[in-house]
Formats: sequence, structure tokens, C-alpha cells
Amino acid sequence: MSKDNNQNAPGKGHLEVIPLGGMGEIGKNMFAFRFGDEIMVVDGGLAFPDSLQPGVDLIVPRIDYLQQNAALIKGWVLTHGHEDHIGGLPYIMPRLPRVPVYGASLTLGLVREKLNEYGVKEVDTDLRVIKAGETVRIGEHFVVEFFRMTHSIPDNLGYILHTPVGRVIHTGDFKLDAHPTDGQPSDLERIEKAGDAGVLLLISDSTNAERQGTTTSEAEVAQNLDALIGSCRGRVFVSTFASQVHRLQNIIKIAEKHGRRVVIEGRSMVKYSQIAEALGYMEFANPLLTSDEVGELQDSQILFLCTGSQGQPMSVLWRLALGMHAKIALKRGDSVILSSNPIPGNEEPVNLIINKLYEIGTDVFYPPNYKIHASGHGSQEELLTVLRLARPKYFLPWHGEPRHQINHARIAQTVPQPPRRTLVAKNGDVVRLSEDEFKVTGTVPAGALYVDGLGVGDVGDDVMLERIGMSQEGVLVVTALLAPTPHVDIVSRGFVKSNRELDHQIRKVALEAIESGLREKKRTEDLRDDMYGAVRRFVRKATGRNPVLIPLLVD
Amino acid sequence: MSKDNNQNAPGKGHLEVIPLGGMGEIGKNMFAFRFGDEIMVVDGGLAFPDSLQPGVDLIVPRIDYLQQNAALIKGWVLTHGHEDHIGGLPYIMPRLPRVPVYGASLTLGLVREKLNEYGVKEVDTDLRVIKAGETVRIGEHFVVEFFRMTHSIPDNLGYILHTPVGRVIHTGDFKLDAHPTDGQPSDLERIEKAGDAGVLLLISDSTNAERQGTTTSEAEVAQNLDALIGSCRGRVFVSTFASQVHRLQNIIKIAEKHGRRVVIEGRSMVKYSQIAEALGYMEFANPLLTSDEVGELQDSQILFLCTGSQGQPMSVLWRLALGMHAKIALKRGDSVILSSNPIPGNEEPVNLIINKLYEIGTDVFYPPNYKIHASGHGSQEELLTVLRLARPKYFLPWHGEPRHQINHARIAQTVPQPPRRTLVAKNGDVVRLSEDEFKVTGTVPAGALYVDGLGVGDVGDDVMLERIGMSQEGVLVVTALLAPTPHVDIVSRGFVKSNRELDHQIRKVALEAIESGLREKKRTEDLRDDMYGAVRRFVRKATGRNPVLIPLLVD
Repeated sequence: MSKDNNQNAPGKGHLEVIPLGGMGEIGKNMFAFRFGDEIMVVDGGLAFPDSLQPGVDLIVPRIDYLQQNAALIKGWVLTHGHEDHIGGLPYIMPRLPRVPVYGASLTLGLVREKLNEYGVKEVDTDLRVIKAGETVRIGEHFVVEFFRMTHSIPDNLGYILHTPVGRVIHTGDFKLDAHPTDGQPSDLERIEKAGDAGVLLLISDSTNAERQGTTTSEAEVAQNLDALIGSCRGRVFVSTFASQVHRLQNIIKIAEKHGRRVVIEGRSMVKYSQIAEALGYMEFANPLLTSDEVGELQDSQILFLCTGSQGQPMSVLWRLALGMHAKIALKRGDSVILSSNPIPGNEEPVNLIINKLYEIGTDVFYPPNYKIHASGHGSQEELLTVLRLARPKYFLPWHGEPRHQINHARIAQTVPQPPRRTLVAKNGDVVRLSEDEFKVTGTVPAGALYVDGLGVGDVGDDVMLERIGMSQEGVLVVTALLAPTPHVDIVSRGFVKSNRELDHQIRKVALEAIESGLREKKRTEDLRDDMYGAVRRFVRKATGRNPVLIPLLVD
Repeated sequence: MSKDNNQNAPGKGHLEVIPLGGMGEIGKNMFAFRFGDEIMVVDGGLAFPDSLQPGVDLIVPRIDYLQQNAALIKGWVLTHGHEDHIGGLPYIMPRLPRVPVYGASLTLGLVREKLNEYGVKEVDTDLRVIKAGETVRIGEHFVVEFFRMTHSIPDNLGYILHTPVGRVIHTGDFKLDAHPTDGQPSDLERIEKAGDAGVLLLISDSTNAERQGTTTSEAEVAQNLDALIGSCRGRVFVSTFASQVHRLQNIIKIAEKHGRRVVIEGRSMVKYSQIAEALGYMEFANPLLTSDEVGELQDSQILFLCTGSQGQPMSVLWRLALGMHAKIALKRGDSVILSSNPIPGNEEPVNLIINKLYEIGTDVFYPPNYKIHASGHGSQEELLTVLRLARPKYFLPWHGEPRHQINHARIAQTVPQPPRRTLVAKNGDVVRLSEDEFKVTGTVPAGALYVDGLGVGDVGDDVMLERIGMSQEGVLVVTALLAPTPHVDIVSRGFVKSNRELDHQIRKVALEAIESGLREKKRTEDLRDDMYGAVRRFVRKATGRNPVLIPLLVD
């Protein structure tokens, strides 16, 4: 088929664009596109909990809409292999029908590993490798044409979705790195050609819409790492995102240049480097070592690539910094390089690690004083470039919190041919799109499904509130035995240090409430309420605290 | 007395410098200086809890050393009125003897208000106002000479401590603002003259030791705020630190220039502006208004100064952003200006507020894209200037985490006459100082005292661990009634959504453990342990979770 001409004439019916995640947030990206009785799904990411979601392991999008319309799903497209795009798949895929899933080689390699880890059988999935430049048909109404966009993981794709109502360009995550590690820059020609032919809707990455200028190239990061590592005399430890395969490749080359063998430390670092090597995304002169194989290498001949750049508890860098690593002890003369920035929310543990490294006496290097990290997302100039080339009629700023979406919307108004309409959509919005229409016409259920222990969705916001309450004030359990003679026991956790006098008074207050209620022949339920109220008032007055109070009556 | 000659010849005995807070951390600053049987105390600040100290209201330094040596305390010096320097006084002062407390007028005004609020009687304190340039004697061995240093609160002081072993310069918190709001820059001549005469020890502010260049002047912030506020057409809301009295003054002047009346919103903002006005640190053409007095003013004639720049729950900005303010509703056309940066740890709530403001449709302005905030602490060039002028023999980098202290120590090595020795001290270190000696010779108890509700020190790290445990996994209370027939009840908080089948299984597992133990005639304690173990194992296997488990036996 001719790529720039839709086989279906525009104007018949309408397309529904339904973000299920990634709007108004950075994380758990997922889209459903619906035309008539066909649905195409894009990505299925996860998000990490914030401080109001304590104890939650991770968060995946609610997929009620897809489950209710399961029979309509014709295919699935994956843009790249980051957790916020594929991390939800082990939870989501088993709940939806087996349909063709299209993704690049590395993306599907990571998906396969992930599904395997969670016990999803290969036979229950239909993973199909595609390449940039290729086109696939999904159902009757969707034709998807993939194109290359640079990002902080190899094999990252944007796509042009040809539909009966017109062309949609979804950039995927991107920056416009002019000097990418693999020498293959973003396919801006493809966007420009689509712009020439007419783009109905652009969906573009808003992450860095507040950052002026252009995002640093990966090549510049590599140059700075080269200079820095070249200046180190003792052992070198580099931590970065394990999924930053190009960065890992560059660091390995830099190590080899400076006569250092590379030791990989940390489960995810090992996993990513193995998959990347197996699929041909990484090469090295000497095999990578484990810490057991260091043998007689001198300090100046070793570089450790390790996990923990986000301060994750029990990661390699965390254990090294806290002196809890079983095999390696940091020492004065070692250099530790954080080729990363803390993701919002991780500032505190990263800061803890940096301080511990200083206390040990290692030399510690990190941004911004060392320019050894670059974001994977384009800044304002790059967003402008895509908008100028695509010249969309309608615009959907995506992959951002409201502050990013709205600034992206403003940026869009500054190009020579600004979009006729921009929507700042929310997850669950049903955005109706046709030649003449671009508006939210309804909503579907969307939001966060908490994965907590083995459960998916069995803790919700009520449980979160209880956890937060207990974390602030502790819990106080008051047990009243009614017969043969009333008697009260209390036990607490996270409340105050055990305090005999206070315990005694609480028991007394509770017992008085019970005895008074019994005299009035109150019902058990009322006795419990009385005891609850009396203890709560007393504790608040005596301690200024408001623990989560659990009254138990045993009769 | 002649300022630059110690009355006591050097060399007799030694001085002990004992940091009780503010070393290895930013917060709860406090020093004890001891010579022979005399102690002088400096400051008494508070710190705010981090994520590992849930529910704690605030943290003050442990003062066991001062309590044990209470009779030796001869006087107390306060450098300035920030919470991390005076916020601990209501807890600390009542536990120590009444001694003369020296501080500048605004500092003591804030202390008075604070003590009053916490019910400490004025008659139990001995507050004495001093000015920059004045000198006081404390005990036989200490002569304290105060000098002006610019900072983010007026009336900020450094001091030269003349002791029998030589001069100590303590910069206090500072930046070297060449254009301060009150026209009175730091007294660098005094530091230089002391340097000429010989400085034994310099104690200097390390907060921004990692920042290159010079910290922005308050004058530049005012210019940018002027331009920004001048460009706003609707209502303007400005939030900043309530203690930033100079900034408040500048904003009031800017408002008046642009024909806007100023409305003050928020308890601490009202408090600081009242104290500052009463003591002559603030002036305005028109009286400040409350939101009840806005009357018929048009939107373009109003500027609100409000609390909440750190995203504090229930602050004015928080209530405005969440649509929970009783009297004011934000609307499209309003401008909200955050003249502040989030303090580490507050990024998440500040980000929430910014996003909510965007969602409402207000125009939101904040750093770094708008240069409308400046730190109160000097950057590397300013630290270098002080080191070059003071030329100390010994150096104690203070007011910083290890990363800041160690970078400050490195900076000190780059001046023409670097210190002979630098110590990176910890809280509780006893640093012995004389002409020939500068080393840690011991430690005193030091650390964090948690203020939680009405209690001071009655929650500790064990309680913190319980709170963190419950916040991650919830709590599960299993109550077993032994007689007449064994019976088990369970109740949980923050665990999982109520789940009849799971509850049933847990009760069954617990009951089996109890019945089996009863058959073996086990003791109550062992029954409890059996039930605890059985339930824990079952819950972990069934749910993947590890709630805080409270087993109760009633017999």
C-alpha cells in the first residue's frame, strides 16, 4: 500500500482515542484506539507508588474497558521496552485475549523475559517482531507504520496510525538526539512527509515541556564519562539505569579504552546486558565478568557497572554504600560515578547513598556538577521541531503531568501552523476524532490498580488511608473481656514507648466505659462505641496523639 | 576591651567545641563551647522528620551533656531567628538553667513569641538584645563579638569568640549578598581584621559548598518579581517562606508600586509580618488587609501573600490549590507565584500543588524558569572569600551533610593560606582546640529527640520501625478466646480489602494452632507463639504480605 494515502477515504465514522494511563502523570502508559467494533491497544506500563501509596509494589492501569470489550481487540503495539510502557503486561495480558503483539526486537526480548518471570506462558502470547519502516495492518481499520525515534533505550519506535478518518502520529517517548550511540537518528523525514500529506492528530511526549533548549546528546554524556573515567586511578563503580543499553555499551567501550575489565553487578544489570547482547545490541572485546572472576586484576584494571542509581534498598550501590555487600568493600581511592539523576520521589535515598559514599572516603561524581547524565526526553526545541514538521490539525499532549501537558499545549501555539485544537486529556477520557471533530465525549473507568504482594487490586485507597494513619500515629488495640467480670487489656504498635502509667490509665478509662454501659444494659455494639469514644478522647488529651484505635469486645 | 587582643594569653588550657546538632545534617543547629568549668551554648534549632521518621512532628537535639553539666552554663548566644536555629528552644530552655540569652532584636522577638506559644514564662528566661558590632562577656573565659552577615532573614549574626586559646570565628548561616534589602552587607572587614590578628578556628556554613559561583542577590529576585507582578492582570498570589522578612517587604513595595493592596493569608505569615512590623523591620504605605477586608477591590488591585510554599497540608496555598479554602476560590486569570524552591523532601507536595494550579487554569510561576527565589546560603565563591579573609589555622565545616562538609573542606584547600587542619566533625564530637591541638578527643551523647504529639522523647527508633512496618503492610490482630471453647476473631487495618474467604482461612489456621497446643497442654505463652507462627506463615504464602501481626490470647 502507499504509505501516505489512506486506503479508506476520510470522513467515514470516527476514531476514539482512549488513554488508559500516561495522561496527567508520568507512568503506566497505555492507549486504546477504537474505530467501530475494532480496538487496537498500545503499550501497558506500570507506575511506582508515591508517598500516599505506602507498601504498594507497583501500579498498573485499570483495564475494565478492555475487559468489557475484549472481543473487539484486534492487536497490540509496543513502542519500547521501558517499564512505564511494558511493565504492566504480566498483569494485563493474561486478562485479555491472545492477539498479535507488535514490537521491536529488544522490546519483545524484554517482554518475553518479563512474562516468563511472572509465569505467563509463551504459547498464550503472540509476539511479533517488527522494525522501523515496517507497516502492519491491525483489524480492518488500522494500519500502523513504525518509524525510529531516539530515546534512552534502543529500538524505540513512534508510529503513524492510518485510520479511516486520517493520520495519527504518536511520537512515543523521544528526544531528537543528533548523535545517538547506534548512529541512527530519529526519522524526522517520515514525520515531515506525513505532515505534507496531512496529519489529523499528533500525540507527543510532554515530559520535558518545561525545559528550555535541547536535551543533551548521549554522545556528550559518553565524552564526559570518558574524560572522568580516564582520570580515575583506583577502582571505578558506575551506576546507571539498567535499561540504558546504549549508555552501558558506551561505558564498556570507555572501560576497554582505559584498560579496565568490566564487572556487572546487580540482577537487572545482568539481565538487561544479557538480553541486549543476545539480541545484538551490545558488543564487547572481553567477556563481562562477575565479582567472583575479578581474580588478580589490579584496582586500575576494573570497572564495576552496578545497579542502585535510584537508591533502591538492597541494590548493589545501596549495599556498597552501607557497607553491607557480601563480597566488595568500598575504600578510599575508589571512584563512584552516578550516571543518573534521581527520579522524583527518589531524592532522599539517593542523597543518603551519596552521603555514605563521602563518609567512606570514596570520590563521588554525579550531576549537575558532572555532566554525566542526559534525559531520554526532548526539551522545548525538540518538541517544537516535531510540531513544525507534523503540522497536525489536532494535538494531544501526552506523557506528562498537567504542568507538562499544559506547557506543551502552549508550545504548540507558537509554531507557524498551530493546531486548530489542543486537548489536555485525562486517563479514561474518550476522545472522539474525525476530520471535523476533536472532543471528549465520555469516559471509561481508568485509574490505578495496586499490585501489593501477590494481590492485584485487592488493596485500594481505603487501605492506603489506614496505612498512612498507622504510620503517623501507630495503632492501639483495646480488648475488653465482658464476662465473668469485665477486664481490659491493651497492646500497641508504633504508638509510644511502653509506659506502664499510661497503659494503666487507658485500661481504667476503657473499663469505666464498659462498666457504665453494662449497668445501663447497653448492646455490645454500643459498649464498643462507648469504649472507643472514651479511649480516643482520653488518649488525645493525654498524649496529643490519635492512633488508629481498634476496640475488641469478647463476651 | 581591645577587640583583637585576647585578654587571656593563648596557650593556657584548651577549648572544647561540641556540636550537638548541625554537623552531618542540615537542621537542629546547636553548639556547646567549653573552657575549663564554663560552658557557652549557641542556638537550639529543630529539624523536620524524613520518610524514616513517620508521624514525628519535629526533632530537637539531645541535650544530655548540657543537662549533666547544667551548673557550668554561663550564657547562650543566638545567631538568627530561623527554625533550625531557635525552633528547639521551647523544648530545650525549660530543661536548662536560666542564663543570659543574647540575640538580635528580631531573633529575640521570634523567640519570645515561640516561648509564649509553648507556655514558657518570660520570667523564666533572661533574653538580652544585642546588635552587630557589640561585644558581650560570658563567664570568665568567653568574649563574644557579634558581626553582621547577610542571610535570608534580617538581623543575622556571625560572631568572633575570643577565648584564652585564641579567636574562633563562627560565620553563622550566611551568603555575601552585595545588595541586601536593608542596604547593610556582611561585615567582611571584621573577618579580615580578625584574620590579620590571627584566627585559630573558623566554623563556616557548608550548605551550598557544591554550588559553583555566587548565590543570587535578593535584589535580583526583587527585580524579577517586580517585572513578573507588573505583567499580571488578575489577582496575584505570592507564596514564600514566612520568615523571609526582606522578601515580604520587597513584595509589599512591589505591590504598592503596581497599585495592589496586600492581603496576608496564613497564620505564620501573619505572625512574622506582625513581629517584623512591631520591631521596625517592615514598613508599608497602606495597612495590610485580611481576606475579609478585600471589599470592593478589583482583581488587579489585590496581591495575596500566603503560606504554603512548601506544600504543607492545610496551608493557604494547599487549600487554594485543592479548592478547599473557605473564602477564596482560584479562577482562570489569577496568577500564582512561588517565590521559593521545595526543601529536600517537599518535592512531592509542591509538585501536587503546582499541578492542581495548572488544572484550575491559573497562571503559575516558579523557579527555575522564573528566577524568583534565591538561597540564603553562599556558594563556592562566597565560601572562598570568607576562607581567604579569615585565614584560619584550623577549619570546621559546619551546617551541612557529609557531602557539603567534605566539599567545603576541599574548597578550603584551594586558598593561598589553607587551614593547617580541617576536621569533618559529627554531632557529639568533642573537638579539643588549642594553639597546637585540633582533634576529636571523645564524644558526648547527641542525636535526635523526637517531638510527637505532646511527648518529647517518648517515641524512638523502635516505634519508627513499627510505624514503617504497618505503613507498608498493615496490621492484623488475631484474638483467640480459649474458654469455654476455643474461638478466634481477626480484625485488620491497612492489610487487604475485607475478604471473607481469606478471613475464614486465617481463623481456621489460628484455631488449629490453638487447639493443637491445648491438646498438648502448652502454656499460654507458647500457644500465642504457635498461633503467631502459623498465621504468619499462612498469610505470607497466601498473600505475599507480611503485616504487623498482633496475637491476643484471652483465657
